Amino acid sequence: MDESLRRIDAFFNPKSVAVVGATKKVGKAGYVIFKNLATNKQRSVFKGELYPVNPGEDSILGFKCFESLSKVPGSEIDLAVIIVPAKFVASVMEEAVTKKVKTAIIITAGFKEVGNKDMEDQVISIAKKGNIRILGPNCLGVFYAKSGIDTLFLPEMKTLSTGEEVVATPRPMPGSIAMITQSGAFGCAALDYLTGRQMGVSKFVSFGNKSDVSESDILNYLMHDAETKVILVYLEDVKGGRDFIKIAKQVTLKKPVVVIKSGRSNAGARAAASHTGAIAGSDKVYDAVFEQCGVIRAHSMEDFFDIGKALAMQPPASGNNIGILTDAGGPGVMTVDELETQGLTAEHFCKETDAKFDELKKQGQILAIAATHNPVDLTGSVTDEQFTISADIMFQDKYTSGIILLGLHHMPGLKEKYIDDIAKISEKYTKPIVMVDIGETEMALYTRSRFDRLSVPSFSSPEDAARAMKALVWYGEYLKKNNALDKYITNFKKCAAPTQAKKR
Amino acid sequence: MDESLRRIDAFFNPKSVAVVGATKKVGKAGYVIFKNLATNKQRSVFKGELYPVNPGEDSILGFKCFESLSKVPGSEIDLAVIIVPAKFVASVMEEAVTKKVKTAIIITAGFKEVGNKDMEDQVISIAKKGNIRILGPNCLGVFYAKSGIDTLFLPEMKTLSTGEEVVATPRPMPGSIAMITQSGAFGCAALDYLTGRQMGVSKFVSFGNKSDVSESDILNYLMHDAETKVILVYLEDVKGGRDFIKIAKQVTLKKPVVVIKSGRSNAGARAAASHTGAIAGSDKVYDAVFEQCGVIRAHSMEDFFDIGKALAMQPPASGNNIGILTDAGGPGVMTVDELETQGLTAEHFCKETDAKFDELKKQGQILAIAATHNPVDLTGSVTDEQFTISADIMFQDKYTSGIILLGLHHMPGLKEKYIDDIAKISEKYTKPIVMVDIGETEMALYTRSRFDRLSVPSFSSPEDAARAMKALVWYGEYLKKNNALDKYITNFKKCAAPTQAKKR
Repeated sequence: MDESLRRIDAFFNPKSVAVVGATKKVGKAGYVIFKNLATNKQRSVFKGELYPVNPGEDSILGFKCFESLSKVPGSEIDLAVIIVPAKFVASVMEEAVTKKVKTAIIITAGFKEVGNKDMEDQVISIAKKGNIRILGPNCLGVFYAKSGIDTLFLPEMKTLSTGEEVVATPRPMPGSIAMITQSGAFGCAALDYLTGRQMGVSKFVSFGNKSDVSESDILNYLMHDAETKVILVYLEDVKGGRDFIKIAKQVTLKKPVVVIKSGRSNAGARAAASHTGAIAGSDKVYDAVFEQCGVIRAHSMEDFFDIGKALAMQPPASGNNIGILTDAGGPGVMTVDELETQGLTAEHFCKETDAKFDELKKQGQILAIAATHNPVDLTGSVTDEQFTISADIMFQDKYTSGIILLGLHHMPGLKEKYIDDIAKISEKYTKPIVMVDIGETEMALYTRSRFDRLSVPSFSSPEDAARAMKALVWYGEYLKKNNALDKYITNFKKCAAPTQAKKR
Repeated sequence: MDESLRRIDAFFNPKSVAVVGATKKVGKAGYVIFKNLATNKQRSVFKGELYPVNPGEDSILGFKCFESLSKVPGSEIDLAVIIVPAKFVASVMEEAVTKKVKTAIIITAGFKEVGNKDMEDQVISIAKKGNIRILGPNCLGVFYAKSGIDTLFLPEMKTLSTGEEVVATPRPMPGSIAMITQSGAFGCAALDYLTGRQMGVSKFVSFGNKSDVSESDILNYLMHDAETKVILVYLEDVKGGRDFIKIAKQVTLKKPVVVIKSGRSNAGARAAASHTGAIAGSDKVYDAVFEQCGVIRAHSMEDFFDIGKALAMQPPASGNNIGILTDAGGPGVMTVDELETQGLTAEHFCKETDAKFDELKKQGQILAIAATHNPVDLTGSVTDEQFTISADIMFQDKYTSGIILLGLHHMPGLKEKYIDDIAKISEKYTKPIVMVDIGETEMALYTRSRFDRLSVPSFSSPEDAARAMKALVWYGEYLKKNNALDKYITNFKKCAAPTQAKKR
């Protein structure tokens, strides 16, 4: 790891953390953040040193409290988390320079975003003297489950007026999706969404005003992060377009980057300008830049997460003709509709595939009335075995670059065995597969969640699946154009854990 | 009720039901359907007479079984449910004519949809002799929770290979949404979705091959059905375009009709043709017909249900300028983006509204840094009271025809009190309001479900809410063009149950 990476790494894996503005006052940001870290240290998740800094306290949550950064033991500090009011941040930063702090997360708001640009510039120029990298100000900072770094000031639980306590801002389990965001509010929402949908997160970064560390720095770090398979980015503007383009081009050859950039409409851009002061620039320019860099742009929140999930679990497609395997005619047609809307096709299979399906019919393994020319419609009489054997044949079809499976669980002959069997089969091939089951009660939730666990991404509507497949195709085309597809797929398949290792 | 309506009503409120092909064999359609009805009769939900018909049984589930339709007591039968193999259906129908059966649901498949058009024509010509109305063949029939009619052959529970029993095809609670569908598979999926999302259903009809009763007949019936507020329709083609146009035009002046028509793409139309034999026709023609009739066309499954929910709970908008009230800047901007994409606007408020917000700032009731020119962004420091008072002001703004509220529950000062307060306020006005909270864990689920219960439709992403608002605006414009908006809104507000009556 080179020096610049090592420095960014201190945000995620610090050996020592000082929390400047830690407090005993329940509900305050300085309490929540310190408590997150203290709890993680007590549980041995966070293994570094932890120092609360507050001149008014002797100890906080059992940890000896220090009057100032300079009083903290040791000759240097990897990470300072700063929560003091905006007007005190500059002087804390002066001390940080003296104390040889490597990185600082400035949670405090009230800088550029409310017009106090000079104050922010001053803080940054002090930090530069000491070569301190700054995340923020006006941010949530970092959540990294494995090292126990959690600077989110939103507590996991919230107490309602009724006295009940409910999960409000949950922390997701470790996983392969990195989420980085300019908006803290969207960041919380994303953590909540990802947790609820059981999508594990490798690193979470809210960078706020990005006075120093920007999306480009983090993208560069995540490119080298073995735990991260996909990078999700929420942006309102891009800082340093030239840098971004250079780094994004490198990253996207190694792992997919999915962006949702708000302010895409004229009215939205005006609203964004009043929100963050960001000069959003023409949306068409962003479109062009993202396309050029191989960054996948999502146009809705749902697509953003769906695409991330698909790319985390499946390899990209090497062509745009998709096979559809269904037990429900209508939803199969809806899938074709959306595929065509997205510029993909669902053309007939090659002769060999047709012959294989004819043979299955002759042997009575599938119904004679089943449609088998893509979509393959096994009808409501489907069985687990019929699904499995048909999927295997479709994976081998030379005209087909990806498969959408519609396994509507309502069909009486369909049990749950086909889930594991199809996931297993998919491992033999390099083509992507995604699945759909429609419904919001027990068996639908079970089916989708089991497929997800086996790395076959599940969706709750035909259109969601078709749009996810579109992203797999688009990314595959981009990699192919850059002669990087084969290498990507080889790496991807190598890293994918085999199904048999995953227990229910 | 005129005679033709009374006849269709016999499908939903029959005084006597004969199940031809009822059986004791667990898992068979004839078992599931008879058991649904028998259970509902035992629970006194279904209050009519119930007769299993099967020459091979003496009794089924404790009910005396009859050898044939003609042996069933009484001089006539309101509804015959027919589950015998296709080749026997014609002779059953002959008996039905003799027995003065009023309506028949032919569940049996194997007719036109697999090429046996003559057999289907024969059945219909027999039925016509006896003036019997036919639903089907190749359908699921009817589910009407209140009268206990449930001809779905998909059992509610399914036993997995592991021996576990899980909910597979749930029946939704009674409510105000009617769902009618050409595809049985999509019908099951819809029931599952609506149940899981706690959207109550007034009537469910799967009409399959629509050899006699078509979407037009059912639309006409539902127009007069006081329990139905919104009609959701899944179509693959339209039977009798002229009739459909005539009836749809009448219905949509009284209640909204939302259609999802699959086969909208060229490839999809080809797939649909091979699925049902439907000649789908040019999709542009459908677009034009739906628009002309005031039918709202959804282009994805998610939109289909979202639009139905919005229209069931809120009045249409009388203009296309929308106010946005948020505690999260980024998601607020995303909402503006999608509004503009949908052809709506989020322009500034009138002078009076600006003055009211300025006054709130002066009094310290909202933050001085809050944006108040639409979007209104109360920032992460939002409180329940700030939301409530701001919503009230926005409802009064004369340039604003609808409100999208983004209540991201992660903000520390936001509890749950604002939910009931805003729902209450919304009742004073005739403008629609929809809300968004992002997240998939406890408090997000609670917040959205509580808003739904109070008839403020909730959505899980900014884009979903904006598209639902688009439908409210489109329908409002259609009604206005036809001088029907004021009357519709008056009726709508009259029927809406006041919030205070709804217990948690």
